[in-house]
Amino acid sequence: MGDYWNSRIKNLSPYIPGEQPKDRQFIKLNTNENPYPPSPKVIEAIQKAANDRLRLYPDPACTEFREAVAARYGVKSTHVFAGNGSDEILAFAFGAFFESAGKNPIFFPDITYSFYPVYANLWSIPYRAIPLTADFSINTADYKIPSNGVVFPNPNAPTGTAVPLDEILSLAEYLEKQKKTFIVDEAYIAFGAQTTVPHINNYPNLLTVHTLSKSASLAGLRLGFAIGNAELIEGLCRIRDSFNSYTVDRLALAGGIAAVSDRSYYDEINDKVTATRERTAQALRSLGFSLLPSAANFLFIKAPGISGGSFFAALRERGILVRHFNKDRIADYLRVSIGTDEEMDVFLEACKEISAH
Amino acid sequence: MGDYWNSRIKNLSPYIPGEQPKDRQFIKLNTNENPYPPSPKVIEAIQKAANDRLRLYPDPACTEFREAVAARYGVKSTHVFAGNGSDEILAFAFGAFFESAGKNPIFFPDITYSFYPVYANLWSIPYRAIPLTADFSINTADYKIPSNGVVFPNPNAPTGTAVPLDEILSLAEYLEKQKKTFIVDEAYIAFGAQTTVPHINNYPNLLTVHTLSKSASLAGLRLGFAIGNAELIEGLCRIRDSFNSYTVDRLALAGGIAAVSDRSYYDEINDKVTATRERTAQALRSLGFSLLPSAANFLFIKAPGISGGSFFAALRERGILVRHFNKDRIADYLRVSIGTDEEMDVFLEACKEISAH
Repeated sequence: MGDYWNSRIKNLSPYIPGEQPKDRQFIKLNTNENPYPPSPKVIEAIQKAANDRLRLYPDPACTEFREAVAARYGVKSTHVFAGNGSDEILAFAFGAFFESAGKNPIFFPDITYSFYPVYANLWSIPYRAIPLTADFSINTADYKIPSNGVVFPNPNAPTGTAVPLDEILSLAEYLEKQKKTFIVDEAYIAFGAQTTVPHINNYPNLLTVHTLSKSASLAGLRLGFAIGNAELIEGLCRIRDSFNSYTVDRLALAGGIAAVSDRSYYDEINDKVTATRERTAQALRSLGFSLLPSAANFLFIKAPGISGGSFFAALRERGILVRHFNKDRIADYLRVSIGTDEEMDVFLEACKEISAH
Repeated sequence: MGDYWNSRIKNLSPYIPGEQPKDRQFIKLNTNENPYPPSPKVIEAIQKAANDRLRLYPDPACTEFREAVAARYGVKSTHVFAGNGSDEILAFAFGAFFESAGKNPIFFPDITYSFYPVYANLWSIPYRAIPLTADFSINTADYKIPSNGVVFPNPNAPTGTAVPLDEILSLAEYLEKQKKTFIVDEAYIAFGAQTTVPHINNYPNLLTVHTLSKSASLAGLRLGFAIGNAELIEGLCRIRDSFNSYTVDRLALAGGIAAVSDRSYYDEINDKVTATRERTAQALRSLGFSLLPSAANFLFIKAPGISGGSFFAALRERGILVRHFNKDRIADYLRVSIGTDEEMDVFLEACKEISAH
């Protein structure tokens, strides 16, 4: 609380990202990274771009990358926005579509991506956290009351549960009648839930946000995109161009184009992740663990007879990093990213040991 | 002005970056890029990093890069902040240190980097533009009245003129007594002006902002840093972590470390740029052009007997892109980035032709 901080930052409670260990070698199941490397074509494209006019600014409109996304998802490039990770796009979207002095709050789940309340505070947007149901799912009917907009991930994080597409579209329709924006954060969509992308033309208020961090194994590159009607995309451009005109660099653009164009490689590795998730889930159930149905690249699990904090610590001691949220309702759960089969075997062995004590 | 834009973005007037031409081959003297490529060590470091765990998130604290900057500039790494280009750092700094509902406005020059009023509008910060003197220089005495903080580039852009270090420090002292932040944007510091960096320990309110875009030939990589006391750096972290935890990617971190560590390569190319600037300035003077004394990698020039708009168009027709600001007081000037000697010869030949008509 220094002399030079303004009242805005004195009142912020910043997001705390998952640990990125620097020294000790961990089995890293704590930040939902893909266990497989990016496509060789991506690495090649980046290495080529490194030697190609890095002295020049990138294309601020990200035209070629947006065209590649448009081709891949069957939309127009005017329906695509590119950002420095989906977190940046979410920060822009909160700043562009949700009112700071809104009469009604925006809605998001009480248990969800913990960056949402941080964005809301940054832009002074009133919000209300809508409780998940007793089985930790999102009941879209709870969101059909007047609000200033809605945002949630599908599948949700850290729970992993998905909302059926027809419920999402019905909520989009309700919000469209009220001219309120509905942000569906599809960071984990590649691992099982149904995307809203084919429906954006029917819902001008629907913005879907995607990242290359998980499904394209590119967390280290910082690249995301949003798909929505042209008015929403233009709104994102307005706020970006009031903040930083060139948020996506030349290397990310080159790598991103290669990534969205190499569908077969990524379908293969993501199918492997999904298969490993199912095998891991079954093994955990047979060890007596409680777990939620996951459509994501992680599991949300509760060990029998041991607190979440103790279980987290016992895993860490064995060199396995997972994520623990010390929050109401979920303090006994851990979020475990899906690693390689070998990593999950080590993890399962540790679970067996810890829960036997 | 769609249904879904909130009142914030309806009221923004976004920044318009210089043209990045996609088709025709231009001599590109419009966005102050360095005409020489980045150090071969930078390219090598990036190519290596492309093949090294891009699937994992980068270090959000940018520790190694900050340590390299600290070593290069003789400061502590706790005095260094890294961002996705200096534009992002400036956006964060406006959001962290200048009050939105400030009783007094912040001050910056009337002719300066045109992103400053945009940042101020984004965060609803009242501002006052202080006129440059008749000879287009910053008179620091004009800034010694109560304000909510001050920001200007040194050397200034698009004029290129520098403020002497003792005047900067005297203004820093005045503002420190009022507990107001002073942001000195040193984007062009490598080309002649004196840096404030060695003095940051004496002025806890002084934040200097740097970019690798110009002096390190890395506009395409998006990397900048700020140097200031630990309280200011922590303030920047607070706002970054309320916005996007990982704004600097693994490739930028690797390239940035190599860049700040290869001083001899960059001293050499930047000395070349400075020598070319001086030669170009002299040639323009002998053609009857008016020009301001430049300590930057660009010249701010006025052609004899032809409007700025017509001169810009005539250059463009000849395949030479420069920057024209259609604004009060400077509408007859052009900002011309310094290219290679060969490019400047073509530019000078065009100037001779155009001014002879």
